[in-house]
Amino acid sequence: MTILLYELVGADERRPFSPHCWKAALALAHKGLAFRTVPVRFTEIAGIENGATAKLPLIRDGDRLISDSFAIALYLEETYPDRPTLFAGEGGKAMARFVERWSQLTLHTFIGEAALMDIHDMLGPADRAYFRESREARFGRRLEEVPADREARLPAFRESLAPLRTLFRQQPFMGGERPLFADHIVAGALQWARVTSPFSFLAADDPVAEWFARCLDLYDGLCRRVPAAA
Amino acid sequence: MTILLYELVGADERRPFSPHCWKAALALAHKGLAFRTVPVRFTEIAGIENGATAKLPLIRDGDRLISDSFAIALYLEETYPDRPTLFAGEGGKAMARFVERWSQLTLHTFIGEAALMDIHDMLGPADRAYFRESREARFGRRLEEVPADREARLPAFRESLAPLRTLFRQQPFMGGERPLFADHIVAGALQWARVTSPFSFLAADDPVAEWFARCLDLYDGLCRRVPAAA
Repeated sequence: MTILLYELVGADERRPFSPHCWKAALALAHKGLAFRTVPVRFTEIAGIENGATAKLPLIRDGDRLISDSFAIALYLEETYPDRPTLFAGEGGKAMARFVERWSQLTLHTFIGEAALMDIHDMLGPADRAYFRESREARFGRRLEEVPADREARLPAFRESLAPLRTLFRQQPFMGGERPLFADHIVAGALQWARVTSPFSFLAADDPVAEWFARCLDLYDGLCRRVPAAA
Repeated sequence: MTILLYELVGADERRPFSPHCWKAALALAHKGLAFRTVPVRFTEIAGIENGATAKLPLIRDGDRLISDSFAIALYLEETYPDRPTLFAGEGGKAMARFVERWSQLTLHTFIGEAALMDIHDMLGPADRAYFRESREARFGRRLEEVPADREARLPAFRESLAPLRTLFRQQPFMGGERPLFADHIVAGALQWARVTSPFSFLAADDPVAEWFARCLDLYDGLCRRVPAAA
């Protein structure tokens, strides 16, 4: 049975942008599972599947509902063990958690602030009001102020990716010779940046950009089907 | 046959301090292998095993010589597959590389500078001359100047450990329920700090300090046999 993936969109439902939803989509594609995406807007989340979740992604697999991208990856690994592995063992599972923590604190912090107005501008009217209110409460500033220093902060952001950069001198993917869910975790963050913002987060000749291009090619170019923000 | 571990010491040969040598010692202990340590000073490295290596650790296992801590861990995993695993699968192996890159750029950079004079002061006369010359060439400054701003840089260092800190809310070790070589990689760096310097790199109530204390307890307290620098 086709799995449903509820994923976050803005005004244009053909442009899902949430990093966590991209992680789930990449995990499903990695497993070679048929899935259908259901576009959901911020202000619609509470209304899906009888209020099953406050956050996306959410998947429905038969009568099972699973939210949270990491939980989805674990579920898929356990439920479809004969399909390509997302973790390549217990060590890979434990350490993907570290990659998630690192990605969250390194990539998400900067991208979420640098692309904040770009994300706002993708949303429809009702979502814009929700987004402004919730994000201004989180940041304690007007939305417009948050990304104002993104150019100044860019060098430090690029520098913070050094562990990835030096890793890709040794192996083509975080998972080694082939991608694993750890790759999806970081690629999901960069796809979020790519879909929402025209800002150049990575220099074109950065080994991290070259690895991301390899990720965009995966699973018949799943991520490339959504053009980059212009 | 007992494995030999050549490890770096200063004037006091009972205080091995190199992070990479500690990683190798922890890996050997994790595998439950009998090993004997051979203390080596900086200026003695070129003379051991017919110039087999420019850097420590080096191990001799029968007629095999292996240098580089990661290569040693891979060798032990392959050669002693029936002993407790250091990687828990291919995913763990690939991602331990990421942990190594992260540790090198985050912990080693700061500890190596903050503890620089402390390390110098542990060495005997010949090693001090070598150390001063090589490190002053590397840093382009007098040795004494390098750690001068360590107090000012400490908050940023502690902040940079946030991925570990939030990970330990989810699991007791980087390897999950049990330690893997990824734990040894980071614990080796902190043991280097502990053995060389009285500087408080971690706050006592930091979850990273609590995890490090668990690492100090491993393998019958292998790391605790060397008292902390005072």
